[in-house]
Amino acid sequence: MATKRELFPLVVVDVAVFTIEQDQLRALLVQRALEPEAKRWALPGGVLKPDIDDSLQAAARRVLRTKVSVDLPHVEEVCTFSGPTRDPRGWSVAVLFYALLPRDKVHALVRSKVEALKWADPTHPISGLAFDHGLQLRSALHAVQSKVEAQTLPLHLLPEKFTLTELQRTCEAILGRPLDKGAFRRRLKNSQELIATDDFVRGAQRPAQLYKASDTFTF
Amino acid sequence: MATKRELFPLVVVDVAVFTIEQDQLRALLVQRALEPEAKRWALPGGVLKPDIDDSLQAAARRVLRTKVSVDLPHVEEVCTFSGPTRDPRGWSVAVLFYALLPRDKVHALVRSKVEALKWADPTHPISGLAFDHGLQLRSALHAVQSKVEAQTLPLHLLPEKFTLTELQRTCEAILGRPLDKGAFRRRLKNSQELIATDDFVRGAQRPAQLYKASDTFTF
Repeated sequence: MATKRELFPLVVVDVAVFTIEQDQLRALLVQRALEPEAKRWALPGGVLKPDIDDSLQAAARRVLRTKVSVDLPHVEEVCTFSGPTRDPRGWSVAVLFYALLPRDKVHALVRSKVEALKWADPTHPISGLAFDHGLQLRSALHAVQSKVEAQTLPLHLLPEKFTLTELQRTCEAILGRPLDKGAFRRRLKNSQELIATDDFVRGAQRPAQLYKASDTFTF
Repeated sequence: MATKRELFPLVVVDVAVFTIEQDQLRALLVQRALEPEAKRWALPGGVLKPDIDDSLQAAARRVLRTKVSVDLPHVEEVCTFSGPTRDPRGWSVAVLFYALLPRDKVHALVRSKVEALKWADPTHPISGLAFDHGLQLRSALHAVQSKVEAQTLPLHLLPEKFTLTELQRTCEAILGRPLDKGAFRRRLKNSQELIATDDFVRGAQRPAQLYKASDTFTF
């Protein structure tokens, strides 16, 4: 007998949330409380609710707000995953987004009591994730890497003010390889996304100027 | 009263099909036969059928096969369009794909009698398209342009064998700007996607060597 789900596919949104901790890229995983795939680690996600969501992107932001207590202004779509077998509830469409979270918001996030959370290293394979979330996480990582390769600066991952060395280390953490300092600084000179502030931090060597994202910056 | 469609969103696939005609980029439009939006020009598209489609990509290929009689091995996902108002039938998710069609398949395509067809210039705004298909077409064009900017060669748009001049003109048609011949040829030298054949064509000037896509080529 055909059920409603066989005529109308299940539509879900999943979000890969990335941050930088101690110069390492980290992705947020949640332990699922409910079936299907209860107890398994997964990307935060949820079913689209047409009665309250205005778009898939709005659904992704709602899921982050309600499941991990974080209110992100911007999520970026990666791609879809679909078919009859990826979710035991039936034919499903998962729309994958990624979000970049500054380090100084991570503390608030991990205090949330909604579900068990952990930050994992997405640059190495993570086995045993629910559904096709291992594949989804690799796709989201690849999307962020492509953005940085295409010279988009991952400013959403940084605190409000940061040094150029911090920015370079963040790019290196995403790409998984060292960058030439001279070439990196020359590339930044042409960036419209970055503006110098009047503030400096005192480091082991000479004071380093602090920068911030320009008002027009969008990832 | 809540209808099924308000609980289960409508899921459709839309496809922007591009080709090159006389060194100009062209996009395929179909005149809709049925409501909603009957008689208006639109991208070829259709509703996902979970009982026969194995994935959204398979649904997109089925739509091209049944609506415009073309069997394309490969379609590329662009992004989704979603919300309560973009389709009068209710809350909907449209998943947009693009496909690149070689010139020598265009003749077979336009002889199909399934619906009225035309090829339009996507590099200028086209007003009056059904649904949000004007916006979708601009998104698909931007996706193809980004691929070519990222040095991916649009070999799917060319006949089986082609000259480097034809390849350059195809890239120029997509990007909407002239490319420097010397820089373009240097870029091709590093390409793994292109192999030289033993064939030449005689032109107005000296004979030009013909090239083809390598076996490992994927767009």
